[in-house]
Amino acid sequence: MSTALLAAAQADFVTALGADRVFTDPDTLTLYSHDETAKACRPDAVLFPASHAHVVALVKVALAHHIALVPRAGGSGNVGGALPVTGSVVVSFECMRRIIEFNPADRYMVVEPGVVTADIDQLARQHGLFYPPDPGSAPYCRIGGNLAMNAAGPRAVKYGVTRDYVLGLRAVTGAGAEIRTGCRTTKGVTGYDLTRLLVGSEGTLALITEATVRLMPAPEARATLRVCYASNVAACQAVARVMQQAVIPCALEFMDQRSIAAIQAAGAATDLPHGTQALLMVEADGVTTDLPRQIAALSAALRGDGMLQLLEAANASEVAALWQARKALSHAVKRIAPLKINEDVVVPVSRLAELVAHIDTLALDTGLPVVSFGHAGNGNLHVNFMVDPANSRQLEHARASLQSLFAKVLALGGTLSGEHGIGTEKRDYMHLEVDAQTMDLLRVIKAQFDPQGLLNPGKLLSA
Amino acid sequence: MSTALLAAAQADFVTALGADRVFTDPDTLTLYSHDETAKACRPDAVLFPASHAHVVALVKVALAHHIALVPRAGGSGNVGGALPVTGSVVVSFECMRRIIEFNPADRYMVVEPGVVTADIDQLARQHGLFYPPDPGSAPYCRIGGNLAMNAAGPRAVKYGVTRDYVLGLRAVTGAGAEIRTGCRTTKGVTGYDLTRLLVGSEGTLALITEATVRLMPAPEARATLRVCYASNVAACQAVARVMQQAVIPCALEFMDQRSIAAIQAAGAATDLPHGTQALLMVEADGVTTDLPRQIAALSAALRGDGMLQLLEAANASEVAALWQARKALSHAVKRIAPLKINEDVVVPVSRLAELVAHIDTLALDTGLPVVSFGHAGNGNLHVNFMVDPANSRQLEHARASLQSLFAKVLALGGTLSGEHGIGTEKRDYMHLEVDAQTMDLLRVIKAQFDPQGLLNPGKLLSA
Repeated sequence: MSTALLAAAQADFVTALGADRVFTDPDTLTLYSHDETAKACRPDAVLFPASHAHVVALVKVALAHHIALVPRAGGSGNVGGALPVTGSVVVSFECMRRIIEFNPADRYMVVEPGVVTADIDQLARQHGLFYPPDPGSAPYCRIGGNLAMNAAGPRAVKYGVTRDYVLGLRAVTGAGAEIRTGCRTTKGVTGYDLTRLLVGSEGTLALITEATVRLMPAPEARATLRVCYASNVAACQAVARVMQQAVIPCALEFMDQRSIAAIQAAGAATDLPHGTQALLMVEADGVTTDLPRQIAALSAALRGDGMLQLLEAANASEVAALWQARKALSHAVKRIAPLKINEDVVVPVSRLAELVAHIDTLALDTGLPVVSFGHAGNGNLHVNFMVDPANSRQLEHARASLQSLFAKVLALGGTLSGEHGIGTEKRDYMHLEVDAQTMDLLRVIKAQFDPQGLLNPGKLLSA
Repeated sequence: MSTALLAAAQADFVTALGADRVFTDPDTLTLYSHDETAKACRPDAVLFPASHAHVVALVKVALAHHIALVPRAGGSGNVGGALPVTGSVVVSFECMRRIIEFNPADRYMVVEPGVVTADIDQLARQHGLFYPPDPGSAPYCRIGGNLAMNAAGPRAVKYGVTRDYVLGLRAVTGAGAEIRTGCRTTKGVTGYDLTRLLVGSEGTLALITEATVRLMPAPEARATLRVCYASNVAACQAVARVMQQAVIPCALEFMDQRSIAAIQAAGAATDLPHGTQALLMVEADGVTTDLPRQIAALSAALRGDGMLQLLEAANASEVAALWQARKALSHAVKRIAPLKINEDVVVPVSRLAELVAHIDTLALDTGLPVVSFGHAGNGNLHVNFMVDPANSRQLEHARASLQSLFAKVLALGGTLSGEHGIGTEKRDYMHLEVDAQTMDLLRVIKAQFDPQGLLNPGKLLSA
């Protein structure tokens, strides 16, 4: 954008939002130039709307000046969803953090997009309820980002993903239309399901200004198993057995050898038996009286060839340490390698062992360190190729490995992303999974919601 | 359509599908001229495609001749969703009833739209699984219709609706594009959620040719309570109490006095205590050892002002009789009145008592018989205004009552339809709930999927 254009637009943004909500100082621009990916791009300005009316107003200004808007909640995404593009303006939802309504009797909460995800859960728990989706970033990510990417987390194996807990939305489309979707009840079929069309659309169709989320009765108690295996494949076979019996765990997390090393470096699980190559963290929740039955059923399924040890966590601090280390894994892995290529693939659980075996082969063939962990109960694996960006040979190996990984995932009946989304990082791989005619439909939907193409350009779809 | 045009189109349909799949005889046309509503309209032809390729081919013919297509599965809908329009051709999916894949290990089934809903559930149960959505019509409706309307049923209070059990779809849009949406895994965020955009779109965007549905472990056991109340309001207050404690029942069905009379006429619940004005059927499911705890918690919540009797069903035949009568209620009510205006409204459960009190007042004020029953745990009430179509005064009262009912439902934070859909019957009320800008978006989405407006015209949106 030219300086003159920017000045005119900036003046209009200031008129719309007030001078204290339009930032163009270098420090702020630098701060908002990146998300959790390794890339960065300075926006021309950062806006901090405080209300739905502000969002309506700023979209009008953007339309008038043809300025790209990059919505941002917590900025903790993994695929470049909140990454600015050249000449864009970041719309930070950090100041829209009101809880508009909390209705414990009807088990819903109406929140603004800047509310921290964990805060929703915490408030719900004060009334015996909980908010099931629990991305690793829950303590600092914001619900707006969760809605944009359809975030999940360990509990998804039993409780489902963000999409399953959104009853309705208020939003402003890229054309400036103010819309309300869905309802406040657990049933409703009045018109096309725009709610779920917007969830996971990565801010490319509309800016969400309010969400009505569904809550559930909080489980009374929880029990945690830590199970060690002599190989990745043995652990994945155990996962398949668990998901073929009736007790659905509320977490079924897989960690390979390198992940174990990372959580051990963080002080957790330092007492594993010799020969441990893979670890499962398995949790059950429900009423206290029913937990022994669940744990017995899960344990029976977890035992089998290659199992070395099965331990029930003895106390809450042991469980907390284990989870803290697990949730910090993504960051821990990042500390090991200056560049990690972090994938988020999913296969049907019965094929997980095949996927892991394929990844083992890739690692052997290329000599590239690979760290795999993830929500195995959903068949969702975070595969991290550890690359030194200065090493062109490694980069080449990583690129080839990615192609091979994706091909295998699709051959096994899987999908390219389970919970991170597409953003900029996987956009160019979409065609491997989504056929041309379906992709055309995504584009025409985008064009209807956002005719000028101003909302988060280059994310999910190429610009 | 003119005779000449029809003849040319018919010849092309025969070329596309074979002569044995294109019916134009008067008997067939009459048979396919109506659904469960009181209306009828003869189509110009009825097509019986047997494969995805047939559907692709017939859409091409329809596009070439600009012929409206009315998709139809079981024809058991309540809102005119499968009702032909003048000059239209019915596409019956009855011959597409293959189970393409059943994968018990990964808990999914890939089915064609003509598969009977109950058959999915039955097949799943042979492997210890079940398909949760259970509309009253499950023994004869077909999954294609359930997908079109986002069908539900009693179990929705615990397990959710059709939308929650669809992982992916194959479909042909009104533009003739062949698309695949979603995936076969329980997680997946690759692109906009076209799967859930199509579910509930009432055949107005695309013809679904395959669906991948998610299955769950079948509960081991079930227990049923029958609870009598001295008033509708007392019963609804009990519903609100049940939905505020932690045990979620797998059915929480409400029946008012006239519904009770109908199920008693069918031979069920003939032993109710004197003064019973409302009945709740409450079910819990899970493992056998945990049921007593669930039943104790539910019973505690169900007891209160106006409760007359709480009985646990003693045996399976008693439960079966109760359910059979409950599931036949919709038809039984139809037998009583030549015309019933059957509504399907939803309010937050905490407001159900207010809604029912309002309906009581409406009935008193107008002298119109009203029969109410439904899935109270979701706040979903089927309100039937019993009208003699020859009585213009009654018709007028019914129309006024409908307006009053809808206004009350929306004032209570509810929605116009919980599970029946919009079809032709509620289309003209959509604007009461969906604002103009949101409605415009529905229209532009429709225009993109179906530029000629050939798919189920006049349903959900006005033609």
